[in-house]
Amino acid sequence: MHNLYYFLLSVFFICCVSSETEGQQRIGSIVSPEVHSDNRVTFRIFALGAEDVKLDGQFIPDSQAMTKDANGLWSITTDPIKPDIYPYRFIVDGVAVMDHNNSLVFVNERINYSLVDIPGDIPLIHSLQKVPHGALNYRYYDSKSLGVVRRMVIYTPPGYEHDSETRYPVLYLLHGTSDTEETWTGVGRANVILDNLISQNKATPMIIVMPYGRAYPIVSIDSGSLGNPDNIQEFRKDLFDNIIPFVEKNYRVKTDRASRAIAGFSGGGSETLAIGLSNPETFGWVCGFAPSVRMNIHERYFEEAFADSERTNQRLKLLWISCGQEDGLYRNSLEFVDILKEKKIDHKTFFNDGGHTWMNCKIYLTEIAQLLFQE
Amino acid sequence: MHNLYYFLLSVFFICCVSSETEGQQRIGSIVSPEVHSDNRVTFRIFALGAEDVKLDGQFIPDSQAMTKDANGLWSITTDPIKPDIYPYRFIVDGVAVMDHNNSLVFVNERINYSLVDIPGDIPLIHSLQKVPHGALNYRYYDSKSLGVVRRMVIYTPPGYEHDSETRYPVLYLLHGTSDTEETWTGVGRANVILDNLISQNKATPMIIVMPYGRAYPIVSIDSGSLGNPDNIQEFRKDLFDNIIPFVEKNYRVKTDRASRAIAGFSGGGSETLAIGLSNPETFGWVCGFAPSVRMNIHERYFEEAFADSERTNQRLKLLWISCGQEDGLYRNSLEFVDILKEKKIDHKTFFNDGGHTWMNCKIYLTEIAQLLFQE
Repeated sequence: MHNLYYFLLSVFFICCVSSETEGQQRIGSIVSPEVHSDNRVTFRIFALGAEDVKLDGQFIPDSQAMTKDANGLWSITTDPIKPDIYPYRFIVDGVAVMDHNNSLVFVNERINYSLVDIPGDIPLIHSLQKVPHGALNYRYYDSKSLGVVRRMVIYTPPGYEHDSETRYPVLYLLHGTSDTEETWTGVGRANVILDNLISQNKATPMIIVMPYGRAYPIVSIDSGSLGNPDNIQEFRKDLFDNIIPFVEKNYRVKTDRASRAIAGFSGGGSETLAIGLSNPETFGWVCGFAPSVRMNIHERYFEEAFADSERTNQRLKLLWISCGQEDGLYRNSLEFVDILKEKKIDHKTFFNDGGHTWMNCKIYLTEIAQLLFQE
Repeated sequence: MHNLYYFLLSVFFICCVSSETEGQQRIGSIVSPEVHSDNRVTFRIFALGAEDVKLDGQFIPDSQAMTKDANGLWSITTDPIKPDIYPYRFIVDGVAVMDHNNSLVFVNERINYSLVDIPGDIPLIHSLQKVPHGALNYRYYDSKSLGVVRRMVIYTPPGYEHDSETRYPVLYLLHGTSDTEETWTGVGRANVILDNLISQNKATPMIIVMPYGRAYPIVSIDSGSLGNPDNIQEFRKDLFDNIIPFVEKNYRVKTDRASRAIAGFSGGGSETLAIGLSNPETFGWVCGFAPSVRMNIHERYFEEAFADSERTNQRLKLLWISCGQEDGLYRNSLEFVDILKEKKIDHKTFFNDGGHTWMNCKIYLTEIAQLLFQE
């Protein structure tokens, strides 16, 4: 029987670590990651039996070999890294391994990455600061359409619970394929970004609803949500039949089109466009972050909006498309934007550096949070 | 730059998995864990390069060798396992590895375990069921005494937000050494257990406050919280100066001694006894789950309570000590109970099978939740 007490007694590599970036390095045996003041980072893993250990991180183009000391402690110190929060992992004799000494985890259904938070000298928009903080609510709802009890994460802005009158606009925020209802907060820091923007009067206080954004498990590109219209159809049913009614019953929200937004990343970005453009009475604000639009699948959701562009432009407060220029979906985004131009659908674009990453997701949320619900 | 889209395109081992045990197996490439209807479980990990892969799980006394197929897929099928939620991991050539295909994670500061949920035929008290559900609130508070912004998790019972009058009793629930503020919900399912007990009228609706239960990082047994009184002293300061005031300002709670309980596991169990017995005006209910009492460190916190047992017995509604009989701390618990007897301090004990595990923590919470705040 595993016994934590004796496990701890057996701890051998001990050195003091103290950081409050939500658990990262709060406990130390081996110190990893060790973020230096010049933004270089040392990563360490104890793997006595291993013959080849590499570091794989979204701050380096290719995985880098680590070196082993006499005790079997593998380590590598990087060049200075641009402050941000990055996923990384170790590749131990070909097997992907998270950092055992880091409790910051990339919340995802399968891909096991740890997160390294490089704060830098000036607090970033996703840095936890001493400002008024909203709350994250983990809520369970009965998804009658899917026949399961499901969980969603809901952000309420600072002061929400001290005021029984004010009603707030709502952003429905969808994750990418293989992410979960926790990824937008655990990796994307959506709540911290909004707390900071609201404290700077740069964003309208809003409620953010982060559901599990698929009807059922993602199985493959062909049968999963990206390729399978049913998964969008059935998630849409869950959204309209269960999620939105739950939110509007349990939270003080505005229920007009101009006070409802939908946004999403990657597979959640194409869901966002499909759901948003086919439900203009529900969503006045529609934002696709690196959306993976496949016209052969999604066109039917756009037909009504494209058929009467004047009416669509009157009803849509904002149609926003973003993508990183190194993202595999960049060309796909450009092609969709060309279609919007051809169909005379008003839209805004935001194309920046970088790839299909959560570093970019944080930037995209920061951008739209300053546009949403502004008259 | 890692690209999730291309990563997904590269997925090779595909088979359909569908489970709603909070993310477990919601996405499948390799199916692991695969829980069979007879409660046997098949675990799988792809490790082409590995020479030796073992399964280490809290449902087996010793780690078991897994077998490799021609594709490098290692697997093992266990005997039937008693329904519960168990931590497990793989040992790949000596390196501990979580299950890449399972999003159920043992929330902890360092120890990387996955969780397997074996539901069985009859819903267990920790099984998510179609009953009214409370909410989990992730709250950020300014810990002035520690100089950091910290997070705590707060459970509010079903209906809390639909009633602006009712005030609730509060349980302050502390985790074990190396756990985090999320472990009582992520592993201990405290919210689900309370939802189920409340729906069966077996527990008084209560608010449960789950803070990060240490003043600063746990570094070793000697300088960390178990061995270092300062860590208890400073956490106590955070609890009294920051956490309790935050809760009593932001939630509708009763503030009398009879409506405040404190409970904790392992290192959090000794903190519970030290804090609870030295603050009888604050806590009327004190429950130690497999507490690691070290009289040379903790005795000073008991002096006042032990000095006047009659007064202590009048003030304490409940002093409850539990431990598993295979727990390395069982003898320690018996010794503490002997001291309580010698000092004539009223108390209840609950000694059951099993070791120093979160399977037992769920049982202990289930037991005390049916005692707390009952007149």
